[in-house]
Amino acid sequence: MITPKRPAGFNEFLPADQLAFNALIAIIRMSYEQHGFTPIETPALELASVLHAKEGGESAKQGYRFTKGDSDLALRFDLTVPLARYVAEHYHELAFPFRRYQIQDVWRAEKPQAGRYRQFCQCDIDIIGSTSVAADADVLITMSRTYKALGLSTAVLHISNRKIISGILEARKLSKHSTEIMRQMDKLDKIGVAGLRKNLAERGLKESDISLLASLAAIAGTISEVTREMEKLDVSHPKLAEGLDELAATASLLDAAGLKKHDYTFNLGMMRGFDYYTGVVFEAMLSDKPEAGAVGSGGRYDNLVGYYRSEPLAGVGASIGLSRLFSAIHGELADGPSSPSQALVVVFNEKLLPFCFSVAQKLQSAGLNVEVYPSADKAGKQLGYADKTGIPFALLCGEDEEKKKSVTIKDMQTGDQKTLKLTEAARYLKKQL
Amino acid sequence: MITPKRPAGFNEFLPADQLAFNALIAIIRMSYEQHGFTPIETPALELASVLHAKEGGESAKQGYRFTKGDSDLALRFDLTVPLARYVAEHYHELAFPFRRYQIQDVWRAEKPQAGRYRQFCQCDIDIIGSTSVAADADVLITMSRTYKALGLSTAVLHISNRKIISGILEARKLSKHSTEIMRQMDKLDKIGVAGLRKNLAERGLKESDISLLASLAAIAGTISEVTREMEKLDVSHPKLAEGLDELAATASLLDAAGLKKHDYTFNLGMMRGFDYYTGVVFEAMLSDKPEAGAVGSGGRYDNLVGYYRSEPLAGVGASIGLSRLFSAIHGELADGPSSPSQALVVVFNEKLLPFCFSVAQKLQSAGLNVEVYPSADKAGKQLGYADKTGIPFALLCGEDEEKKKSVTIKDMQTGDQKTLKLTEAARYLKKQL
Repeated sequence: MITPKRPAGFNEFLPADQLAFNALIAIIRMSYEQHGFTPIETPALELASVLHAKEGGESAKQGYRFTKGDSDLALRFDLTVPLARYVAEHYHELAFPFRRYQIQDVWRAEKPQAGRYRQFCQCDIDIIGSTSVAADADVLITMSRTYKALGLSTAVLHISNRKIISGILEARKLSKHSTEIMRQMDKLDKIGVAGLRKNLAERGLKESDISLLASLAAIAGTISEVTREMEKLDVSHPKLAEGLDELAATASLLDAAGLKKHDYTFNLGMMRGFDYYTGVVFEAMLSDKPEAGAVGSGGRYDNLVGYYRSEPLAGVGASIGLSRLFSAIHGELADGPSSPSQALVVVFNEKLLPFCFSVAQKLQSAGLNVEVYPSADKAGKQLGYADKTGIPFALLCGEDEEKKKSVTIKDMQTGDQKTLKLTEAARYLKKQL
Repeated sequence: MITPKRPAGFNEFLPADQLAFNALIAIIRMSYEQHGFTPIETPALELASVLHAKEGGESAKQGYRFTKGDSDLALRFDLTVPLARYVAEHYHELAFPFRRYQIQDVWRAEKPQAGRYRQFCQCDIDIIGSTSVAADADVLITMSRTYKALGLSTAVLHISNRKIISGILEARKLSKHSTEIMRQMDKLDKIGVAGLRKNLAERGLKESDISLLASLAAIAGTISEVTREMEKLDVSHPKLAEGLDELAATASLLDAAGLKKHDYTFNLGMMRGFDYYTGVVFEAMLSDKPEAGAVGSGGRYDNLVGYYRSEPLAGVGASIGLSRLFSAIHGELADGPSSPSQALVVVFNEKLLPFCFSVAQKLQSAGLNVEVYPSADKAGKQLGYADKTGIPFALLCGEDEEKKKSVTIKDMQTGDQKTLKLTEAARYLKKQL
């Protein structure tokens, strides 16, 4: 005997959770398509030289990489690098702006933690080949609507624009420290203003610059609040102005699309990663559950396909880490059924099986999910199965029912029974469900 | 620059094909759930010792296997071994009979051929923990209905039962040659009756046995035709009788469930693999496209979890190789759109963007898929994009329209234009689509 177990750090769901998870994916898919994003899927395996182009094809620490025959292969670790490869490979077959969504698993050989697994599901959207602020707004609108569709009414988009910090650092001649400064600012939540000041001072920044950055990090609110606060800062730079203009234009489009004040906020201390993004950046937080961290994020980049094409291709995108989100909200989901069936046909004896299958067929044809218990076990055992799997109705199909072309419908919750003509059963069940 | 390419033998779709493929998956998922199968998904990676239990954990030739840290890992090569591991691992948390479906990719390092890739999608159903012929019929009914739902009206299930050949071989004391005999019979299509006779003679079989097997291989038709033909053969054995009885019971349930004469046939020469199956076996063929080969198959097995549990667990299952099926029918699918959008909002100038997003929002809220072109490119370019991606309607949202709270709807096929109040646009579009 071999012990049946998964590799460490790999999760899988029992059926009730899988059904709940799939329901979330269906909502995300519908929402993404409602906003005109088209699906693609890429192979799990890529050439390591292509996937790890950024590191010059060197082995990535967190990657699953191996050789098979002559091929140096690796499992994708995100959906962005495969998108870049896809767009570059199929460039002449795609229509631009290219609006794609991709809902697939990715693999990272990280140390497993609660809610973090080595294989997890990402749900990405990107608009490639547009530099317009309308594309920024479009991605933000799609994300906000998607959270609402998922029932996450407390989701708030925290939005900033990398041009603001870039402009400030250029104005103050601090660009060469930009990565380190952004890293410290991004830690503001953890280290506080005093910590930020101390850390920036340790890195040799002047007091006037430190004050400016600490003030910037605290600026948050509506577009008019943020604009007003920015005017108080003693700094100006064309890039900074451009960043603020883009945020204002974005805000007007979010409002036009019906987003409410509590759906988004500007948060200029939020940096969202340290390279890659060049314009708008955002992360989504649940206002009633900040401890869950960001439940999605994204931003604008100047060039998606730098490693694969000489012509740059700008874009803007976002990602929902669905596995992590599911872990975060799982406690609040009611324990659902572990079967998609809406009714179980109970089999009293083997001779009644043809009648049982004909009953199931009639109801299935009417669009109901119906299963036939596959043998004439004791009725109690069959009802116990319906109970355990959460099937809401049992259909008792005995000899009387067969004779009268009827079916006795038992509500598993209340225990109530009702005998109906077969022709009426589907309508009745649909009304009850 | 790194050439953007996939590893050899790995396929991916352009958006139009991905949309078409996803539509097939959605149909299969719906059909499987309508018949009460519940979804599970398992990790892509399994422990090699678990996945290759059959070979004692030795490297499988066609497997993607590698070590990461201390772990000897392998990508799944089918959905049956992971199901066995899942059922054994979660045995006490599952309700039996366990009806699961699983739609996931598998990986095989085979030589790539037309329509055959190294990563491909399988759509499996199984009923675990039932020995009943009702479960056999249930799987067959689900498969037949699923093909019909996919629009494959010519799909025919070819059904046999392994107990028939087993009984015959036992009666004739040929069981020790069973694998070789079944292999030859399975090749009947290619080698013909004369070839079969010759090959069996070369393996030292007696003329009377050869005649019997050649006669068996030719028996096909309805249950009564097959039963009549079997009576003419000079052979009897309890197992053979049991196999025929099971087929008769299956036929009566398929008929009760509304399957028609052209939906299934019995074909006693069909062997479907050489070990593993112990009862009913079947394969699905397209009667107008036999060259596509089997577009699905399955059967009953005595024990799913033999490597992982001491108690056996019987089941019956089936699988659709969707990637292969898609290749086979792809030529007949009309070239569909490459966007899910039903309407494109055309942007005449940047100032109109808020109006454009508000129009999109209204229609999206009404359930339509609508995208906003993300910048004020020339109208011809925007309409060209709608044309190229197959978006059926363009929504012209100019200053006039904004003033009158209306929208001009352009049918991309006919070129017809119609200006409607915003409140009427959704209803009109829905009627046209």
